[in-house]
Amino acid sequence: MKGQQMAAEMAEQPEVLARLAERAVAQVEAVRTLLPRPLAATVFLARGSSDNAAVYGRYLAELASGRPSGLAAPSLYTRYRAQVDWRGCLVVALSQSGATPEIVTTCRAMRAAGAVTVGITNDANSELSSIVDLVLSTDAGAEVAIPATKTVTAQMLLVMMVAEALGSVEVTPEQLLMLSAAVQSILADPLPIDRLARRWAHVDRLIIAGRGLGYAAALECALKVKETTGILAEGISTADLRHGPIATVYAGAPVLLVDTGGPVAADLDELRQLLTDRHADVVTLPLGPSLPEPLQVIAAVVRGQQLARDVALMRGADPDAPEKLSKVTLTA
Amino acid sequence: MKGQQMAAEMAEQPEVLARLAERAVAQVEAVRTLLPRPLAATVFLARGSSDNAAVYGRYLAELASGRPSGLAAPSLYTRYRAQVDWRGCLVVALSQSGATPEIVTTCRAMRAAGAVTVGITNDANSELSSIVDLVLSTDAGAEVAIPATKTVTAQMLLVMMVAEALGSVEVTPEQLLMLSAAVQSILADPLPIDRLARRWAHVDRLIIAGRGLGYAAALECALKVKETTGILAEGISTADLRHGPIATVYAGAPVLLVDTGGPVAADLDELRQLLTDRHADVVTLPLGPSLPEPLQVIAAVVRGQQLARDVALMRGADPDAPEKLSKVTLTA
Repeated sequence: MKGQQMAAEMAEQPEVLARLAERAVAQVEAVRTLLPRPLAATVFLARGSSDNAAVYGRYLAELASGRPSGLAAPSLYTRYRAQVDWRGCLVVALSQSGATPEIVTTCRAMRAAGAVTVGITNDANSELSSIVDLVLSTDAGAEVAIPATKTVTAQMLLVMMVAEALGSVEVTPEQLLMLSAAVQSILADPLPIDRLARRWAHVDRLIIAGRGLGYAAALECALKVKETTGILAEGISTADLRHGPIATVYAGAPVLLVDTGGPVAADLDELRQLLTDRHADVVTLPLGPSLPEPLQVIAAVVRGQQLARDVALMRGADPDAPEKLSKVTLTA
Repeated sequence: MKGQQMAAEMAEQPEVLARLAERAVAQVEAVRTLLPRPLAATVFLARGSSDNAAVYGRYLAELASGRPSGLAAPSLYTRYRAQVDWRGCLVVALSQSGATPEIVTTCRAMRAAGAVTVGITNDANSELSSIVDLVLSTDAGAEVAIPATKTVTAQMLLVMMVAEALGSVEVTPEQLLMLSAAVQSILADPLPIDRLARRWAHVDRLIIAGRGLGYAAALECALKVKETTGILAEGISTADLRHGPIATVYAGAPVLLVDTGGPVAADLDELRQLLTDRHADVVTLPLGPSLPEPLQVIAAVVRGQQLARDVALMRGADPDAPEKLSKVTLTA
């Protein structure tokens, strides 16, 4: 049956997240002992859905470490042969397969140039695992459906642990354990998303906006919708949307707001009003139980998975295996 | 007449670029004397089309300086009150108006935390100009049309000078002077773009892909198309497109490739083949005279302006003043 595999893997998330949460203290400690001191910067290296976990990490790491953080540009290393001094930097490379050539090549170059490297992957025996200083395994079991689900939320939880090692993300161990239960309750409550999927089953384009930590969830929801349904869903920051792209929002245009709380909530409210003035079809992504903002971002990603899968099924597509996509993308 | 203002401002680009090119040696020297030594990192801070100039700068600066470069996340400073140590870092803040509150606030916070700051703006009397260590003025004259054109290419040229101050972008002074003439010949040769605009006048969505330095041009072409036409144009890296979003490319779907040469040209060729296999409507952006890659990126942006303006006119829109957009976007 279409979408069975994706559903099964989504359903494993509470277990995967609980397992990782139990290891948090040890994982944080493992990263902490490795850190360059003083820390010059933290850089995240990834593609695809891993890159959305990287965006999440980039925000958390700058906040927690009090030092600049950013995203790597792999082509500088695989194409332009950049000679960059990475001493003093922590590089976090994310790849579910651990096999994307450009991630492996770039990570190797950065480490050779002095970076301390952490690899976050679902395959502890992958090439990426063999070239980093420390492997944090998502340990999510085999993922077969093309759209990455359980490996993405697991990556995000590990990224949060990296940030905790850099300073503090202000999430207590007790709160960390709440995430698994919240995801469980989201999975048990598909109705709000079913309704939304029905509403937007036949749209051709969609804007998904968030800000701050929630921006990463907006990007990941958009990527999931794109790859499973073929809808051109653009993930965007609420501030970027206002600098021009809002011109694409015509009356009736579907816009999804990802409001994961925190100090950016007022920006979402302001944008909602602007979009309502344009008579857009604005919906706020229904979430689950209340959670601290960094955890709510991960929970929002699960809602995005549900939406993507539901819409794909309503369009007659098979979310498990979108046409001409493969599980490991061999970009160099 | 619709679009007259935008056309007039686009037509000023050869003059604006020639004026800046003549000042290159002095501008490079002014930045060089200011640089933190040793340099920890270079960070670009911007929104909207300035942010696309920032992406261009982020690539050039990492290549030229041999130290990490990246893009700032303003919400960390305007919303999350991040406490970050910016000593040793060069921050390049870009804002055409110099008045976007979040850019000013964030730049001020970074400077107070130790960054050396350069402001690139079209208003030397703006608030941004008053709070940075060095102002590089685009000196492009008043820009009245909503879509930024001459100020964007001018920003990009100044960004290239900042990178030259950090190391070398491998563009000779003679080559720098070629840019103005190349833009002049592009402006005098609108036919290839007219044809393309006619072909895509009524599309509803568009993917614009580039890689490496050309990625910035793809983003800027997409933004220009979005804000002037209302088409949902997504700018994307060729590598990112292959990690999932290629699922949105159905038979006949319009895709524009921005191929500005250099070591990423083979990636464009590979993607062109993949898209042709999906029976997409793939077009490579027609460029002008041959130029070194960093300059060709700026020239490609001018082609994107022509495309956006032409398509808007064919759709009956006024590119000078897209509905409900204002020249200065007051995001905080």
